[in-house]
Amino acid sequence: MTNSSLLERRQKLLGSAYRLFYTHPLHIVRGEGVWLYDTEGRKYLDMYNNVPHVGHCHPHVVAAICEQAGKLNSHTRYLHENVLDYAERLTAKFADELDTAMFCCTGSEANELALRIARIATGGEGLIVTDYAYHGNTKAIHEISPETCPVEDLPPYVVTVPSPDCYRGRYRDADAGERYAAHVQVALDTLKERGIRPAAFVIDTIISSDGVIAPPPGYLKKAAGIIKAAGGLFIADEVQPGFGRTGKHFWGFEADGVLPDVVTMGKPMGNGHPIAGIVTRADLARAFSNTDGYFNTFGGNPVSCAAALAVLDVIENENLQQNALKVGQYIAAGLQLLADRHEVIGDIRGNGLFIAVELVANSGERTPATKLTARVVNDLRDRGVLTGSIGRDDNILKLRPPMVLQSSEADLMLETLGESLQALAV
Amino acid sequence: MTNSSLLERRQKLLGSAYRLFYTHPLHIVRGEGVWLYDTEGRKYLDMYNNVPHVGHCHPHVVAAICEQAGKLNSHTRYLHENVLDYAERLTAKFADELDTAMFCCTGSEANELALRIARIATGGEGLIVTDYAYHGNTKAIHEISPETCPVEDLPPYVVTVPSPDCYRGRYRDADAGERYAAHVQVALDTLKERGIRPAAFVIDTIISSDGVIAPPPGYLKKAAGIIKAAGGLFIADEVQPGFGRTGKHFWGFEADGVLPDVVTMGKPMGNGHPIAGIVTRADLARAFSNTDGYFNTFGGNPVSCAAALAVLDVIENENLQQNALKVGQYIAAGLQLLADRHEVIGDIRGNGLFIAVELVANSGERTPATKLTARVVNDLRDRGVLTGSIGRDDNILKLRPPMVLQSSEADLMLETLGESLQALAV
Repeated sequence: MTNSSLLERRQKLLGSAYRLFYTHPLHIVRGEGVWLYDTEGRKYLDMYNNVPHVGHCHPHVVAAICEQAGKLNSHTRYLHENVLDYAERLTAKFADELDTAMFCCTGSEANELALRIARIATGGEGLIVTDYAYHGNTKAIHEISPETCPVEDLPPYVVTVPSPDCYRGRYRDADAGERYAAHVQVALDTLKERGIRPAAFVIDTIISSDGVIAPPPGYLKKAAGIIKAAGGLFIADEVQPGFGRTGKHFWGFEADGVLPDVVTMGKPMGNGHPIAGIVTRADLARAFSNTDGYFNTFGGNPVSCAAALAVLDVIENENLQQNALKVGQYIAAGLQLLADRHEVIGDIRGNGLFIAVELVANSGERTPATKLTARVVNDLRDRGVLTGSIGRDDNILKLRPPMVLQSSEADLMLETLGESLQALAV
Repeated sequence: MTNSSLLERRQKLLGSAYRLFYTHPLHIVRGEGVWLYDTEGRKYLDMYNNVPHVGHCHPHVVAAICEQAGKLNSHTRYLHENVLDYAERLTAKFADELDTAMFCCTGSEANELALRIARIATGGEGLIVTDYAYHGNTKAIHEISPETCPVEDLPPYVVTVPSPDCYRGRYRDADAGERYAAHVQVALDTLKERGIRPAAFVIDTIISSDGVIAPPPGYLKKAAGIIKAAGGLFIADEVQPGFGRTGKHFWGFEADGVLPDVVTMGKPMGNGHPIAGIVTRADLARAFSNTDGYFNTFGGNPVSCAAALAVLDVIENENLQQNALKVGQYIAAGLQLLADRHEVIGDIRGNGLFIAVELVANSGERTPATKLTARVVNDLRDRGVLTGSIGRDDNILKLRPPMVLQSSEADLMLETLGESLQALAV
């Protein structure tokens, strides 16, 4: 079937709320490692997808899913070792205080659960988020996602703080972390004026939708201190940065030596199998369970935990966190060389295999090169390299490949990006 | 590992918000058809689980998951035929008007999406639900779930109507359908007094949490007419009754010849693989897409659609809807014979393989036999038959087995229930 007839079927069957990537959408039929293949056998280097964390169709994960799916798939109202084994291995990835895990199916559900815990544990309702955050698509999470929820629709109990962006934001000096964090206090004051007690400060530890921003040193720690002093919780959304992607650390929040009250996670957890969850302290889980039970039909089932256990195996056995660090640094260095030749590259930032390349029309005024970014993303796709764009002005290339990316593949991406920028004469 | 050490690990790792079934929890390690097996190889007849709709670990579904998981698992931002093939086969199960499908991962997410569509399409906010409804566990859905959300916590935009229960409720005569439906108008009047425009009436088409209540004839049609006349939508929650379970119809709402505006579905859709979704009219999907895009990371991915396609194959190839009708009638007749011997059986109701047995201490006053019901459920478990209880007074046995249940297995359940009631001397 041609793409145009697929597009027609899609429009008719799924409606127009579904958006496709690229001017010429891809019809992908096979994936392996960092490679995706279309119907004609053409292969694409996947520099975008973080869900297939340990590589598309990793045989160890596929085998784990198949084995467990053929044996039993039930729920957490019977005893089963998979959910316990996984909870044990997952909580072992955190400081001792974060010892309790709860499971659901999507990042939105994980953030929903985190907010329920925060509201019950604190008695507060107020939530503080960055001003272009995205945390999910359910109603309560849409309300803390100004990327998709228009500012005028934010309820009074949601207050935003500026994203700690040291390239484009209001503070760019060595004190930026501290100065941005002070806005959490401003937000608390706003809540207080509105007569609303705080429940939590929720933040991606690499702030994705705002533009793949690694918070400046001291920011998370100071911000967490401020919200905790006010009786609120610090919720770290690790849906994207977690599971070793940032290279130096297994979790994004570790970069700042801070301890969250609740950590939420999702996308990469099952390498595409729908599993998500939270890790929190026993006292918070207890406060929650005194008020509410928790059951999620598919959450923590034996198959999803088998997938998630297999993902941890691969991360550990194939040293993927170290690989993310090494190849991430290699890419950053290669991008720097490209930046020397192409003034359009205004900023290169990120950690490990979570990298942003911000494109600007004017390096002095840093004017967002929004249209150019769309052209680059589409041109790269035509050249066989898959990326995406992000940020308020959609002028930031997001590089967030499967964690098995090798330097030789990074070379291909760097060369292709160079060719693309050359061809687009920028 | 013994159950007691598993219980200890579970308490430590998952906290106490997680509840287990039965006084002596089960440690299930294998499933096949309608049978579950514990660590000691003891087998249990599963009369409870509806998620494994076409039978635990059905080989056709497992093979479909394995094949697709080994080939590609991505998302709906690339073209893929699975999501279109499934949307086509799914919408073909509805009247022509219901022609658009959208996918997510859980029933809660499906109901979230339905409410977003209802609010955008109607401009209203008010929601009407039955007074012991359960529709999910996210914040917005918890608010329309009085089974778990205390009445005093219901927001002003949520108004309840009495469950159309003709055994225990206020109306029990032939006009009950009409009289219960009139309460939807009362709820609309309440919303109007509060200055709130209606968005939707949301109802299970076999009302599960309220006590497995099949709405009396005319109820759904009349109620749908009232909400539509007021500018609101009629949302049919088919998470439990859907996919042929009620025997006579593929969807619960068909029993009353009514056409919902949005249908939500979940649990049985992927036989345990996390997939859920909605089906709606093109004009409503369009109204939604004019305001909002929709993306759900795992929703509608190629593996979940492969699982869901395989489930439809099995339902059709093994005539499971017809089987539900036949075996369901067989069970109902058998239960009737038991009721003649045991006065404790106050009511037998349901459709197909979605059956309630209401236990009462006093058949005249219909006093709920709550404690006895818990004893029966636990005794049946000890005798190798798995059921659960439901309803405001937890005095209703819920029988909702995989759809492949055969009459011989139904016999075993009926015999065992007879023995149990005999042994408990009731």
